[in-house]
Amino acid sequence: MKLWHTENARSFRVLWALEELGLDYDLQMLSFPPRAFHKDYKDENPLGTVPLLVDGDTRLTESCAIIHYLSARHAGGRLSVAADHPEYGAYLNWLHHGEATLTFPQTLVLRYAFFEPEERRNPQVAEDYWAWFLARLRLAEATLADGRPFLLKEGFTMADIAVGYAMQVAVKLPGRDALPPSCLAWFETLSRRDAFRRAQEVQARALAETGARGLVLQPT
Amino acid sequence: MKLWHTENARSFRVLWALEELGLDYDLQMLSFPPRAFHKDYKDENPLGTVPLLVDGDTRLTESCAIIHYLSARHAGGRLSVAADHPEYGAYLNWLHHGEATLTFPQTLVLRYAFFEPEERRNPQVAEDYWAWFLARLRLAEATLADGRPFLLKEGFTMADIAVGYAMQVAVKLPGRDALPPSCLAWFETLSRRDAFRRAQEVQARALAETGARGLVLQPT
Repeated sequence: MKLWHTENARSFRVLWALEELGLDYDLQMLSFPPRAFHKDYKDENPLGTVPLLVDGDTRLTESCAIIHYLSARHAGGRLSVAADHPEYGAYLNWLHHGEATLTFPQTLVLRYAFFEPEERRNPQVAEDYWAWFLARLRLAEATLADGRPFLLKEGFTMADIAVGYAMQVAVKLPGRDALPPSCLAWFETLSRRDAFRRAQEVQARALAETGARGLVLQPT
Repeated sequence: MKLWHTENARSFRVLWALEELGLDYDLQMLSFPPRAFHKDYKDENPLGTVPLLVDGDTRLTESCAIIHYLSARHAGGRLSVAADHPEYGAYLNWLHHGEATLTFPQTLVLRYAFFEPEERRNPQVAEDYWAWFLARLRLAEATLADGRPFLLKEGFTMADIAVGYAMQVAVKLPGRDALPPSCLAWFETLSRRDAFRRAQEVQARALAETGARGLVLQPT
């Protein structure tokens, strides 16, 4: 399997999942944003986005689809739950929630507070979507309020990677003091996992070897 | 099962999927946005969003998670594909792509071009995300370019509902003339399905009975 990745982007979910499952992969490190630095990347992925995972004839571009795919297709369902499991609905919901509801609003904060050229920045939109993100975090906050270590009672699953990445971005943003303590404690647990650290090491090594320029999550 | 829905919102995906699968459900019709018109709805769903599907102890809020859940949990996998199917990766990718990549950007167009009060509207952001949506539509456009009737060669699946809803919104927006012909033809096929029409009729009847105020997708 081949994974196209840029530092700290959504593709980190896939790198982390590959390390959790102990699967073999070939990492293609790109500079952010790939459409600006790697013009020929569009031949691989017409959207120009990361991640791209190629597995034989299968090509996937959605990080939260890929992490479940890896479990179902290459790990006999490890770190996911099956359709007859009592937490199956919750599992699926977190997989989608992590990206569609929690990560997308943060990309608006990044875009209109930091990435756009000065004259196109827009503090109102950045504030609207930071508030939106915090309001939507209530589902994770309420779930983690009982002190459980992971989103499912079952234990650590791809659901934690899906939602955990949204926290990985959030803790680098200027509004981080408003994040709920239960979510921060949970993310702290996640970030101490061996596979999370290995994924960070693999990423750092690939950056050093390729000189790729990453997505800077701590804007100044 | 009980579905909370507002007219033409993402919860239409769920209504459509329930009709495709012929499942029994109880429909709770709300006015849009529910957090303004139904203060007590937060007791059911702390996010205040639709859809909410309650199935025994399982509560789901992500429309593209729900449509797959219905197939896997209540219809023996009908209208989805299993993990050993050659199109499994593509199926999962479309499920996530439909909401995270294609619907969210359109909500920015709606919000900053129409829903916000005059002084908070923002044509730049609305244009940025309409362009973003059109660029991301390339994956569906490229897939449908071979004239296939549905996103998977396998036939109609929940993938078509996930992505189809994004087209259902797009065709009502002022920029609709820029939509790719292959995507328009595909959506035309979808909207002629019996279950799609039944979902629209159920919605119209529930609106008439409750007097609920819908999400107006044809802003003036």
